[in-house]
Order: sequence, then C-alpha cells, then structure tokens
Amino acid sequence: MKPLGSVYLVGAGPGNPDLITVRGLTCLREADVVMHDRLIDLHLLEEARPEAEIINVGKEPGDDTLRQEHIQWLMIERAREGKSVCRLKGGDPFVFGRGAEEAFALAEAGIPFEIVPGVSSAIAVPAYAGIPLTHRRHAHSFMVITGSRTHDLQSPEWLAASALVKAGGTVIVLMGLSRLGAIVAQLLSEGCDPATPVALISRGTYLIQDCRTGTLADIEKKGEGLRSPAIIVIGTVVSLRNTIQWMEVAEKLDLE
Amino acid sequence: MKPLGSVYLVGAGPGNPDLITVRGLTCLREADVVMHDRLIDLHLLEEARPEAEIINVGKEPGDDTLRQEHIQWLMIERAREGKSVCRLKGGDPFVFGRGAEEAFALAEAGIPFEIVPGVSSAIAVPAYAGIPLTHRRHAHSFMVITGSRTHDLQSPEWLAASALVKAGGTVIVLMGLSRLGAIVAQLLSEGCDPATPVALISRGTYLIQDCRTGTLADIEKKGEGLRSPAIIVIGTVVSLRNTIQWMEVAEKLDLE
Repeated sequence: MKPLGSVYLVGAGPGNPDLITVRGLTCLREADVVMHDRLIDLHLLEEARPEAEIINVGKEPGDDTLRQEHIQWLMIERAREGKSVCRLKGGDPFVFGRGAEEAFALAEAGIPFEIVPGVSSAIAVPAYAGIPLTHRRHAHSFMVITGSRTHDLQSPEWLAASALVKAGGTVIVLMGLSRLGAIVAQLLSEGCDPATPVALISRGTYLIQDCRTGTLADIEKKGEGLRSPAIIVIGTVVSLRNTIQWMEVAEKLDLE
Repeated sequence: MKPLGSVYLVGAGPGNPDLITVRGLTCLREADVVMHDRLIDLHLLEEARPEAEIINVGKEPGDDTLRQEHIQWLMIERAREGKSVCRLKGGDPFVFGRGAEEAFALAEAGIPFEIVPGVSSAIAVPAYAGIPLTHRRHAHSFMVITGSRTHDLQSPEWLAASALVKAGGTVIVLMGLSRLGAIVAQLLSEGCDPATPVALISRGTYLIQDCRTGTLADIEKKGEGLRSPAIIVIGTVVSLRNTIQWMEVAEKLDLE
C-alpha cells in the first residue's frame, strides 16, 4: 500500500500574487495536485510543477452542497493515492470559504493536513486603499461579517454589527455588494448615523483597484456600476484614506 | 540633492518566519535599513543584506508616546538620506500596533511609502490551534478587539463584543491576557453564557504553542501560568479544535 499523501489548505492571499506567504508558495511549488478556487490570481498557477495536475474547483455563486462534497472527495482520493495536494483558497483558508469544513472532512478521513494561513482580503484590501482597520483615535476593534444572501440581516450577529457601527468600531462586510441597499437600510433602521463613512473596494490589492467612498446615506448611489466581488468597510477609519491613500501616490510617482 | 528613499511598512506575520509574504520578504532583502519590533521572529533578520542597518525599535509595554515619535522621526530621516527602509512590524501593519500612525507621519512628511499586508495573528494563531474563526454552523462573523489596559472594558466597543458573544459570533482579544479575569467578569456581567467555549493560545504558529481551552466559567483557572503575549478566542468555534487540531497530529506523525 502506498503511504498517504498530505493536503495543504493554503491561503492564496487577497489577490495580488506577491501576497501569498513563503510557506504557501513552497507548498504550491512542491504539490502533485493543485485544486484552486475561482477567484485566485491565475498567475500563481505558473508556480506549480509542469507535471502537476491542476484542477479548477471554483464554484459559481449559487452552486450547491454536492459540489462542496465533490471537492472534499477529490482531495481525499488524491491523498490516498499518495499525492501531495495543494488546496489553494482565496484569502485565508479559515475565514469563510468553507475551509473549516474541508479540514473536518480530512480529519475524519484520517488524511494528514496542514493549514497555511493567508493574508485575508478583509484586512489587506482596505490597506491598499489607505484604510487601516484600527487607529487609536478611531477604532479599537473591527468585525468581519458575511453579507451573503444565506445570512439573514436580522440575525443576532448582524444586530451586533449595528451595535459595533454605533460604538465607533470598524465593520467589514465580505460578499455583500449585491445586497448593499438592504445592508445600509438595516444599519440605518438600527439607529446607525447616516453620516458614518463607508468605502466600497473592488479589484482590491491591484493597481486597477476601484474604491468609492461616501456615507451610509449616499454610498448606494456612489457604488453604482461597481463590479463584484467588492469589500464594504464601515466606520470613521475610512476618513483616514484622504491622507494615506499611498497606492495612488506611488503610481503617480512612477508615472512622472 | 539625493532622491528620496521609500519606506515599506511590512507585516512580518504572526510568528513563524515562513508566514511572511513573498512581497514582504523582497522588501526585507532589498532594504538599506531594517527597523523591527520586539516581537518579530529574529530569524527573519538573517534575510537582510549583510550591510543593512538593523535597528531594534521594539517598545516595552508601558513605553510612552515619545518613543513612537522617535520611530517615526528615524524612518523619515533615513528615507530623506535616500535609503530604502523596511519597517518590519509583527502581524499586519494596519491591525493595531500604530501602523496607521506611522503611515500618517510618512504621508505628512511627503515620503513615498508602501503598505505590505501581513498574516494577522488574530486569524493565524487560532488556525494553528485548529480553530477556524467562521463556520457555517457556528459563526458567520468574527470580531478582533484589543484587551490592552488603555481600552476601557465598559466602552461601547466592548459592549458590542459582549453582544457578539451572545449572538454566537467569534471574538478574538489581542493583548488581553493580563486582564483575563476582568474581561471574563465583564462578559459574564453582560449576560454571556458561562458555558461559552474559550481558548488561550501562547507561542502561536510554533510547534511549541501552548493552547488551553475551557469556558468563560473556568478559563481563568486553566490559563494559570500561561506566558504573554497570548490570544484569547471566545465562541463555539473553539469546540472544532477537538476534531481539527492538525498541528499536534502532524507532529505525532513526524515522530513515528
């Protein structure tokens, strides 16, 4: 019997391929099999061995549970064939995206695995837009929440998000652009100040990032035409962008 | 006049030196000057050029604002001498740790700078302990808050944290170990369930990690003797560690 292979659940980072970790890149370069999500930067795949099997397991929005089970089955089968599998996931493997379920399936099947954390888009995308999540004079905390349709906007977790916005903390919403209107309406109905600064960031961590800023009162209008996926940042830290939007400055210096 | 140098505010990651990003490592390797925090893994400094100037600007707890201003002054002075400065900060530069203030000072001084995001210890340390921050059946959100003495436990942000614990989300407290008793007492007085699972993790992302688990009712006793700095994770996701504590398993396999 062949010895078991291993599975590496690797965070590919927030977009820009230079933001993968050194450990993640090593796992990717050594893998026999690379199973990747839809939203990773495809330049990363050039790092795989020429003979590596590359499998796109990206789910389109709306795909069902069967698909997730198939991904888990594939990882386990390849590991049982003795192969080293790099499961390349956008952002960090344990922040949304079902990384925990994949780890669970591997543990239950007795497959050795490793979690290789990644830079989360929830933190890095705002950073590229010049928005720090915390600041001594603004926010001592931040919260990351999914805005996806499967998560009820009147859930206790969303009510806690409203409480945090009112308290002056920073709230980052992932996968929420298509429900932006409903999210804003919910926060306002919970008593959040309409003047609270908001940013929407699409194509984050790339030079072509598209960042729109406004307030809870006007962000829906300002976000018109923005492409998904995008990250929503709510809180007074958004105002810091006026001073520290370093990427646009860096780009301008390069052009001169 | 010499042309201006640049400053790179680089996240060194959560501890394990392999968790720096590829971009961060490049900035470190090319720098003329490396200014590093107290808590980064010193093995990273071996990556600097032999002729690079290495400055330990680590603050001991309790150091004052003057020290922070001195750090900012140093960065600006070296950049004005035309040097490339790598400001190596633990975790992510924009999650606590005054990265935003340093960016502000650079912007106001007209020094070109780049933010290089890092893997935040708030996410990666729990991952190494087998604790995902989100899971479809547990938590759809997580919150990161500072437990440091300068942050009043009765502040509106801490009240929002209690609300999130009650709502079933995950709360991660950084720099809170020395106030663990007060934090637990505050959460309980706000009505959080004493049976809520809690983990304390010291020396995270290393094989020698020390992870203690319990509940709000008994974690203070279980944490006795644990070394600072440590991360506190509160929420039902902590129970997933029983199944997916992959690092202890990986270590056992290596020993056999």
